[in-house]
Amino acid sequence: MALRYDFASDNVAGAMPEVIEALAAANAGFAGGYGADHVSRRAAELIRAELDADAEVRFVASGTAANALSLAALAAPHEAVICHEHAHIATDETGAPGFFGAGLGLVQLPGQSGRIDPAALARTLAEPEVSYHQSPAALSLTNTTEYGALYSEAAAAALLDAAKAVGLKTHLDGARLSNAVAGGFPLKRLAAMGLDVAVMGGTKAGSTPSEAIVLFDTPLARRFDARMKHAGQLVSKARYLAAPWIGMLESGAWARRAAHANAMARKLAARMPYPIAHPVESNGVFVAMDEPTLQRLRGLGWQVYRFIDGSVRFMCSWATTDEAVEAVSEALAQIR
Amino acid sequence: MALRYDFASDNVAGAMPEVIEALAAANAGFAGGYGADHVSRRAAELIRAELDADAEVRFVASGTAANALSLAALAAPHEAVICHEHAHIATDETGAPGFFGAGLGLVQLPGQSGRIDPAALARTLAEPEVSYHQSPAALSLTNTTEYGALYSEAAAAALLDAAKAVGLKTHLDGARLSNAVAGGFPLKRLAAMGLDVAVMGGTKAGSTPSEAIVLFDTPLARRFDARMKHAGQLVSKARYLAAPWIGMLESGAWARRAAHANAMARKLAARMPYPIAHPVESNGVFVAMDEPTLQRLRGLGWQVYRFIDGSVRFMCSWATTDEAVEAVSEALAQIR
Amino acid sequence: MALRYDFASDNVAGAMPEVIEALAAANAGFAGGYGADHVSRRAAELIRAELDADAEVRFVASGTAANALSLAALAAPHEAVICHEHAHIATDETGAPGFFGAGLGLVQLPGQSGRIDPAALARTLAEPEVSYHQSPAALSLTNTTEYGALYSEAAAAALLDAAKAVGLKTHLDGARLSNAVAGGFPLKRLAAMGLDVAVMGGTKAGSTPSEAIVLFDTPLARRFDARMKHAGQLVSKARYLAAPWIGMLESGAWARRAAHANAMARKLAARMPYPIAHPVESNGVFVAMDEPTLQRLRGLGWQVYRFIDGSVRFMCSWATTDEAVEAVSEALAQIR
Amino acid sequence: MALRYDFASDNVAGAMPEVIEALAAANAGFAGGYGADHVSRRAAELIRAELDADAEVRFVASGTAANALSLAALAAPHEAVICHEHAHIATDETGAPGFFGAGLGLVQLPGQSGRIDPAALARTLAEPEVSYHQSPAALSLTNTTEYGALYSEAAAAALLDAAKAVGLKTHLDGARLSNAVAGGFPLKRLAAMGLDVAVMGGTKAGSTPSEAIVLFDTPLARRFDARMKHAGQLVSKARYLAAPWIGMLESGAWARRAAHANAMARKLAARMPYPIAHPVESNGVFVAMDEPTLQRLRGLGWQVYRFIDGSVRFMCSWATTDEAVEAVSEALAQIR
Repeated sequence: MALRYDFASDNVAGAMPEVIEALAAANAGFAGGYGADHVSRRAAELIRAELDADAEVRFVASGTAANALSLAALAAPHEAVICHEHAHIATDETGAPGFFGAGLGLVQLPGQSGRIDPAALARTLAEPEVSYHQSPAALSLTNTTEYGALYSEAAAAALLDAAKAVGLKTHLDGARLSNAVAGGFPLKRLAAMGLDVAVMGGTKAGSTPSEAIVLFDTPLARRFDARMKHAGQLVSKARYLAAPWIGMLESGAWARRAAHANAMARKLAARMPYPIAHPVESNGVFVAMDEPTLQRLRGLGWQVYRFIDGSVRFMCSWATTDEAVEAVSEALAQIR
Repeated sequence: MALRYDFASDNVAGAMPEVIEALAAANAGFAGGYGADHVSRRAAELIRAELDADAEVRFVASGTAANALSLAALAAPHEAVICHEHAHIATDETGAPGFFGAGLGLVQLPGQSGRIDPAALARTLAEPEVSYHQSPAALSLTNTTEYGALYSEAAAAALLDAAKAVGLKTHLDGARLSNAVAGGFPLKRLAAMGLDVAVMGGTKAGSTPSEAIVLFDTPLARRFDARMKHAGQLVSKARYLAAPWIGMLESGAWARRAAHANAMARKLAARMPYPIAHPVESNGVFVAMDEPTLQRLRGLGWQVYRFIDGSVRFMCSWATTDEAVEAVSEALAQIR
Repeated sequence: MALRYDFASDNVAGAMPEVIEALAAANAGFAGGYGADHVSRRAAELIRAELDADAEVRFVASGTAANALSLAALAAPHEAVICHEHAHIATDETGAPGFFGAGLGLVQLPGQSGRIDPAALARTLAEPEVSYHQSPAALSLTNTTEYGALYSEAAAAALLDAAKAVGLKTHLDGARLSNAVAGGFPLKRLAAMGLDVAVMGGTKAGSTPSEAIVLFDTPLARRFDARMKHAGQLVSKARYLAAPWIGMLESGAWARRAAHANAMARKLAARMPYPIAHPVESNGVFVAMDEPTLQRLRGLGWQVYRFIDGSVRFMCSWATTDEAVEAVSEALAQIR
Repeated sequence: MALRYDFASDNVAGAMPEVIEALAAANAGFAGGYGADHVSRRAAELIRAELDADAEVRFVASGTAANALSLAALAAPHEAVICHEHAHIATDETGAPGFFGAGLGLVQLPGQSGRIDPAALARTLAEPEVSYHQSPAALSLTNTTEYGALYSEAAAAALLDAAKAVGLKTHLDGARLSNAVAGGFPLKRLAAMGLDVAVMGGTKAGSTPSEAIVLFDTPLARRFDARMKHAGQLVSKARYLAAPWIGMLESGAWARRAAHANAMARKLAARMPYPIAHPVESNGVFVAMDEPTLQRLRGLGWQVYRFIDGSVRFMCSWATTDEAVEAVSEALAQIR
């Protein structure tokens, strides 16, 4: 029996054809190293245009690195970053923020479907500072969240405003920002929301490994290349991290293919015979499923995983096919 | 006037066609994340075969990261790594070993053309340990060296043996290992020389960003994926860091194209009208050239750089053409 | 109205007379630096005798440093230390383990009165290792706990044995080890319990700032002085961190005065008109008290604090007097 | 034969009587923890008065920690601190700046007798920034230097001004600041010289372990206690690190006893039968002495050490007696 990974994650898919073509196109000739090349410049321009913002842009190969490097630029080692208790930076990055940030702390807040509860944030921001705690220096949001939920512009802005009002810096983990955009989040409003740094996800959107670090707070760009090099994140042939963005943005495929992924998730949700655990607002479907049922599904070859909250996660991507949704739906019906 | 970067570095070249083809081939279908995929497994097998060694292999996007991550696994923060005073890890990596190693120190030794002087190593190894110094825990060699010189098997083994005799771990920065191999270094003897970790360079050999970390000391592989993730070095779509190696090794292009680069350097050296500063044993030609002359060369469009020792460096790569060697030779003759 | 700090903490007391006398005695003459002095040697001998163990001993000025330095020697940056969710290292040390350990993680377990729940530990130890989590490398216990509870020898041994059975290292935060000993914990059994490192608390026992790091696992002592120096923990005039231990141990005051502190807590508990929240097994009394009542108590000048679990903490020390217990008891009765 | 350590270092002496008395005086009663106590406040006031500056003051037990903690507050991990190549932070602190600063680099400059050569500084400050180097963010001076030489106000100001002119922060390692003051350095001019942070040495001046971190740049004090706690440098019974300063400053002994140490060095220099290697401007005498002679001196019981530059160092302290100077002078004459 062939194992099927279609819904295991959105990083099990390959790269979209626009990316492979852009890589081949970028391959011609000689180019300066460490980001000083025409491909990196063009990709950064495209991102600025997409965001309608005068930001500095850098590319790294890992989303974990993109987040951790950003957070280390926003908070000192004896300070903390506020995030959701199930945020990727808190639960799935092997403590990378603490490594990049020399012991940087995380203050983890609750909230439904991965969205930080505003009241919990308010309470945290009101806490008195004491020398034996790592006081918050930054707020990190994830959009869409780890549970596929979407922050609306208003919901995100309310949290960011509360943080900025007391002097915190702000960070967006946009590993699935394309899915948020496809879900209705207004990309060109990011800068206006007062973000200092956003990570704009390429990998899960359908790129070869590449994440864009967008420094809205442009003074942060001072010596940022050295910061990247120091942290092993400045590759010499930088054009290969930038090229995918040319492929994804010039063609519009970054957002368009995320819309496909979201549509596949809606289609799957519509056929899902198990209780849906979180609002299906992007490319994931989380369902309540007991262990024997999950094992039966795996027994049919479908590789999916139980998530932190106990639900079973089905992720769609640019590469998810109608056929796959139908096939897994059939399997799901069969194992009931 | 068009600027020509042909000799600026060996990382200004694009990727060889075998690599682009392998990337495209690896792109098909779904694959597990974080290195648990068929492409990563195949690439690792090819490397083990190439080295004739039962080693664990991991892939990262940056040579700096490959080195620093390795060194942090070999020495504690309060210890030091011995290297040449002009080693890339000491002079060109923005302190990355200190970052990955939480303040890890470097003991920098002299030696001609980037090769560590055995007597200097002996003196260092004989120094008494004191609590106010970072005592050495590892030795790092670079082959070929930053000056294009080659360690013979005997020369490298003598240094490694001296270090291992007093309990040090050993590391090879093989960013240009393909050039060393093309220059006569016996790749299959690496394991027998007692190396703990070697970084096998892909990028400068003609890959898209990829370096192989080869753990000859396989117990080091325990939790190494977590170490990589923690340090922002474990990419989810790992197949794109592994695929280039399939392209380079199955075809033999990794070594064959390095032989071309070395040949281009010899050709350039033969025509060089300036005093050659270091033995031309691989793909670089270093020459004594005063500043006005260098400026005249740059005035003709040729981008080359003055190196740490004051000489001017001309680097050849897999992509260097006979035409380019002739053109730059002509320019060099013209500016005398 | 004079503010009274008698019960605010056990670190608000001064140093016992035996310590001041020992400091004065150690002051005579010249002595080698960085621990190579007769005072440091004598203090280490006394500790070994007290523990009946062939351990290496070092002295530092801060309990946070003693713990964090020890943990960094037991777990790698990409690994974690298991501790109670209210352990001092997790809640009150400003992330110091993450700083000393370059991003070292903590896995925080529940359990009544600060004692780790054995079932929770078993579950954690049974979890599969994945690269995106920091897997445990060590277990840290605190005795007595942050809630004044005592681990019996059997209870501590059961947890340590479970951890050691799967290869973990072990650490004891003994900031209040003297109170544990006074409560019946057999000090000479520590070594037999298989601890790798114990921090033996001086400060809260009645010393000027000094904590002893006891390396039962003596190979850990290799280059430990360099580790301390690197981390800013090796003072040159080390005799002044060692001398207090001569004063406390030669006289028996370390344990005897802890017995006094414990007795004062029992006396206070006996008179406490509020519900007692945790077993009074050492020198602290934790009580359920609403906020208006606490404010009335503070209004009478008594400085005490609400602890993490919401109870109000009264700490006794070597310096707590019968008069103070009676005075605060009277105040407590008065504010009901 | 009794070994004599009188001239081995200035940290082999005990504490001056004023310090021991102040410790005993500070021992009375209860006091708040972590620096919030009357003793810490009083000591900070005395230091501000001594410096005639509105600075924030903190106390730590180790000079290495005082320096490294300060430097980590002035430079980011991917940046560097400029210092003399024989500065204590570069040669004798086991890489502590790199640990506290998460891989912070040091740019080491030459200069006679430990004073940075202004031309070398100018060259360094003029270097273009590149991503593969750690560019300087701060300048660190040591006064008196590791060779007992004194920076005059003008000499120090010239270096500091050059650094500040290009945006660098500034740090003074004042482990022997009392000797500089006794040598004529105007303490009250420090603030006007534009220093951001100075470490004011207590230990070598005759204290029990205590160094004062003086934050002239008071905004640096924000969350500095948390920074200290995070780095294991905030002791709970902080009064014992502050009290020595009350003893040394209220009595004037800090400067007066340093004048004695300097006088002892001058007396020794006057009788020294070997060539003096560095200007005797404070409490050290460095002499050219071959190895057999040094061994003969040690054979007579005198413990002195060969320093980094090859000269033999004789350090005087507050505790150096006329008798000792005479005795060692006699021994020196005898072994010729």
